[in-house]
Amino acid sequence: MRIAIDAMGGDHAPSLIVQGALEAALEWPAVHLILVGDKARIETHLGSKRPSNIEILHAEDVIGPDDEPVKAVRRKKNSSMVMAGQLVREGKAEAMLSAGNTGALMTTGLLVVGRMEGIERPALVTMLPTMDDKGVLALDLGANMDAKPEHLLQYAIMGSIYRSKMNGMDKPRVGLLNVGTEAMKGNELTKAAYELLETAPIHFIGNVEARDVLVRNCDVLICDGFAGNIMLKAMEGTAGTLFKTMRDVFTSSLLSKLAAAIVQPKLRALRNKMDYKEHGGAPLLGVNGLVVKCHGSSDVKAVKNAVRQAKLAIESNLISSIAAEISRK
Amino acid sequence: MRIAIDAMGGDHAPSLIVQGALEAALEWPAVHLILVGDKARIETHLGSKRPSNIEILHAEDVIGPDDEPVKAVRRKKNSSMVMAGQLVREGKAEAMLSAGNTGALMTTGLLVVGRMEGIERPALVTMLPTMDDKGVLALDLGANMDAKPEHLLQYAIMGSIYRSKMNGMDKPRVGLLNVGTEAMKGNELTKAAYELLETAPIHFIGNVEARDVLVRNCDVLICDGFAGNIMLKAMEGTAGTLFKTMRDVFTSSLLSKLAAAIVQPKLRALRNKMDYKEHGGAPLLGVNGLVVKCHGSSDVKAVKNAVRQAKLAIESNLISSIAAEISRK
Repeated sequence: MRIAIDAMGGDHAPSLIVQGALEAALEWPAVHLILVGDKARIETHLGSKRPSNIEILHAEDVIGPDDEPVKAVRRKKNSSMVMAGQLVREGKAEAMLSAGNTGALMTTGLLVVGRMEGIERPALVTMLPTMDDKGVLALDLGANMDAKPEHLLQYAIMGSIYRSKMNGMDKPRVGLLNVGTEAMKGNELTKAAYELLETAPIHFIGNVEARDVLVRNCDVLICDGFAGNIMLKAMEGTAGTLFKTMRDVFTSSLLSKLAAAIVQPKLRALRNKMDYKEHGGAPLLGVNGLVVKCHGSSDVKAVKNAVRQAKLAIESNLISSIAAEISRK
Repeated sequence: MRIAIDAMGGDHAPSLIVQGALEAALEWPAVHLILVGDKARIETHLGSKRPSNIEILHAEDVIGPDDEPVKAVRRKKNSSMVMAGQLVREGKAEAMLSAGNTGALMTTGLLVVGRMEGIERPALVTMLPTMDDKGVLALDLGANMDAKPEHLLQYAIMGSIYRSKMNGMDKPRVGLLNVGTEAMKGNELTKAAYELLETAPIHFIGNVEARDVLVRNCDVLICDGFAGNIMLKAMEGTAGTLFKTMRDVFTSSLLSKLAAAIVQPKLRALRNKMDYKEHGGAPLLGVNGLVVKCHGSSDVKAVKNAVRQAKLAIESNLISSIAAEISRK
């Protein structure tokens, strides 16, 4: 099993990316990791501890966070991200991970790794946190800004297979993000998608509202990339603002600091639970291989988690299962 | 000044609606209130205290929460909601308030009160809570599910006038809800709307993200009804779930109950602050008169607040100012 890692992407690249890869390589000796990036810098961070299942592929160039995605992917053929994508395209790696520029990684998935046959638009998949810790798999959260009903149908099929393969769910409940639960609610897109989802080979439970996601009213949440991204950021912003305001409440007096000391461990656990960045990488589904976006602020633990996730996806034949189901239609 | 109130709409109708109207009538003697609904029931709740500035207009019928909006408005001509709308249409009232069926009220606005000349789609306007208590006026949050760029432009003009007239803001900052702050982010709708907003007679500050709304990164937030409703419910659901989980944390032990007692007043204030239902009624802008949707669970205080809001809108010539600006274009 071979996984390519863009060692130069992300806020803490290459240091924490390389350290995360190192820990993963030591834990899973059967996983062969290819670190793509500046050889000298990667070697510095690897030090003398380099295990035999870590390989370095030198890349001259780097795609930065402010690079215009399509232009960067087209022009920077020797960047660590594009070269990692090339390894997947050529079958030299089964997966690639990157904590770099999200738009550029989606473009790499589309243009370098290549779109899966039968898929119109790949989708960016994120596990939203829920109170019961099982999460809601939401897609698309930003790869495709102008989705058509057929795209949403394909998301539903890909998301269902993901939950079955990755989480062992038997009949994952698929919900359509909408402004109300009644069948005919919504805009033209969701109304048309609802009809397609009703006849799809999935367990469609109908429309779901954004206010119920945290209590896991479905296992797979289907949405267009625009509305999905708005939902994600509204949840993130509300949780962030509330926790910040609570911190102010708890530090406002000596007595409140005492109160804080009592409940702090549980509140901290709640805050961590709400942090979707903690919940692993976001795969781009619908391309010819596994492409996983790690959060830009990924640290050692996040990189190791992303490798674990990729390993599980490869072992469970996630991508070939999706390809088989999509071609069956 | 004459304000029609649908006495039969809402979870607590007619009792709390009538009581709210009664308190408003006593506080503002210059405001003439017309309670539309079942005369006998309204009289029961008014008791013997009926002031001279409260009038009852008997309505045989009621539009229920589960009625299909367009069908109900077309067929139930003698319903309290449609009759209240008719009063506005005929100039017998300057405003109408209802806590009933939202879809039916929007339809009443469109079909009974009538669309304002030059306006393509009316918008439902809600004040979102912010940490500094000044709020963000968001529109549209659900009247128009398939908005065009021109609709968003009209929302921006109506929202700016609302903030100037109702909150005395000199140059309200108008933001476009989007998935990123850069100018070219978003879907086809927001990209086209961005260009229109740049040349509009408003103070356009560009794209804003849902995660920053609570810290009031703009005064008027422009969005299509679908995405706006998703955002609103994501915020509501996240806040609701967090407060519920915190309550569990605080009641989990004797010590944590002690902690709760210390910080409870401030946390309760925070929860109330986050509750957008507390922030008055939601006007439907773009129709020929003032139509205000009160929350379904409106109580005495909410009804009284909605009357205060309508009174201010009438005094500040809100509707005629919007009509003048829209016809100028």
